[in-house]
Amino acid sequence: MVIHSECYPCFLRQVLNACKVIGSDESEKKRVLKEVLAYLKDAPDNLPPPYLSRDVYNIISRITGVEDPYYEIKKESNRTALKLYPELKKRVKEAQDPLFEAVKIAIIGNIIDFGAGHNFTLEDIASFENIPIGINHYSYLKEDISSAKTVLYIGDNAGEVVFDRILLEELYSMGKKIFFAVRAKPIINDATVSDALEAGIQQFAEIVDSGSDGPGIVFDRVTEEFKHLFRDCDVVISKGQGNFETLEDIPRRVYFLLRTKCDVVASILGTRLGDIVILKGGVECADGLLL
Amino acid sequence: MVIHSECYPCFLRQVLNACKVIGSDESEKKRVLKEVLAYLKDAPDNLPPPYLSRDVYNIISRITGVEDPYYEIKKESNRTALKLYPELKKRVKEAQDPLFEAVKIAIIGNIIDFGAGHNFTLEDIASFENIPIGINHYSYLKEDISSAKTVLYIGDNAGEVVFDRILLEELYSMGKKIFFAVRAKPIINDATVSDALEAGIQQFAEIVDSGSDGPGIVFDRVTEEFKHLFRDCDVVISKGQGNFETLEDIPRRVYFLLRTKCDVVASILGTRLGDIVILKGGVECADGLLL
Repeated sequence: MVIHSECYPCFLRQVLNACKVIGSDESEKKRVLKEVLAYLKDAPDNLPPPYLSRDVYNIISRITGVEDPYYEIKKESNRTALKLYPELKKRVKEAQDPLFEAVKIAIIGNIIDFGAGHNFTLEDIASFENIPIGINHYSYLKEDISSAKTVLYIGDNAGEVVFDRILLEELYSMGKKIFFAVRAKPIINDATVSDALEAGIQQFAEIVDSGSDGPGIVFDRVTEEFKHLFRDCDVVISKGQGNFETLEDIPRRVYFLLRTKCDVVASILGTRLGDIVILKGGVECADGLLL
Repeated sequence: MVIHSECYPCFLRQVLNACKVIGSDESEKKRVLKEVLAYLKDAPDNLPPPYLSRDVYNIISRITGVEDPYYEIKKESNRTALKLYPELKKRVKEAQDPLFEAVKIAIIGNIIDFGAGHNFTLEDIASFENIPIGINHYSYLKEDISSAKTVLYIGDNAGEVVFDRILLEELYSMGKKIFFAVRAKPIINDATVSDALEAGIQQFAEIVDSGSDGPGIVFDRVTEEFKHLFRDCDVVISKGQGNFETLEDIPRRVYFLLRTKCDVVASILGTRLGDIVILKGGVECADGLLL
């Protein structure tokens, strides 16, 4: 998807959120905002939003001198999520369809997203059960996984990686070779290699630095290794909105697991804001083949 | 008050609201946004927000070619409010303290503000009764009015002017000479002379074009007549947030009647968002005298 007009106020709101986390005073906030205004006025508006978010967060870091504003929040998210891990694992074991339960848990983990301005308390987990599933292509996912040997799983946020681990363990127990892709460097609260390691992902999947330095898969930066995995793995699972925004119109079959966190994405998907989505997505190539 | 960092995303949100009313497509929305981004990056940040809003709405009008996007909404607001007039009038007549009832009704009218993104249905009137009064300086207002001969009443929005009329009628029945100030030209849904006339204000007050072309009292544009009235009238009553933003630190005793519609103003006033405010405000001069 390309930048929507509604993304512009959202970029500024994200600047204020990050500055709040950093502890900027009004004067610093205004300095950052004015640089971001100058950037946005000339920035291309035909790219997915994460391409611009990357630059916006770089401006924040440059002016405030804080390279990784969400560092503490990410570590705390990981710790909090790990405490819940045994209970989540128990739920999968007791479920009628453990794979479906694990998919749902992975998506519940996607509710942890400090970049989109949503808070997360673990007490909410029970209430998350009642969130409507706006799109449910689970049966296709299950079928495609059953015949797959390799799975590329594109991670999203810190904290959420612990919930991803639950699903990765299920895939691992089914004998799949899994690659778990993370961001190349800190961006908002997105998971990097250290977060994946903290979640214990390395026991079940090969952790791969995607090369992307934006809150999504920014293709002008991804590594050759990631490109190969993205092309060659039997199934690609993408977590969260940022990855959806950058991958939804790429000619490749991708399963998107996410919760819709803004009106623009909800409208593209045809769901209500806040719905859970299990989407068999990806755009077909001109010749009818998928990348 | 001066522009707050939180005003910047709000400016962009207002652009999108206006473009929606105008019916702009994505391409026009982005053209307007980019011009506004360019303007805001260099605009002074030590002025009250309405000084910049004026320019932002001028950009919207210039690019879309629509001079008065809220024209129909204003007319509809006036018509809707006039239908409610007899019932509001009845409430004042039956009230223990008709002046207080009229003040409350005038503030309830302030909930009509399409510029701040709030909707208004007349069915809500009953529920408005339960809105907390965060600041209540009514007793000071009553006392000052009792000894006043002249009152300058600074209006805010279309539709709301009908609710203002209820209070103006009370003041008129007390023998006050009243001046009712409106904007010089259309800006958002703010009342101009034609709205005041539609509300029938001329029966109880002299309608005065303030000269201000922003959604507040923009002092670099006000007329000499307005300046004189502002200085010389015994009591000044200011309606709404926009007028508060431009007048709160002027060295002049002003009674502010409003509902807080954003976190920044609520924080300055020390109230919750959405509270009703009856504030004896105005900054004292260095020599202890008020302008």
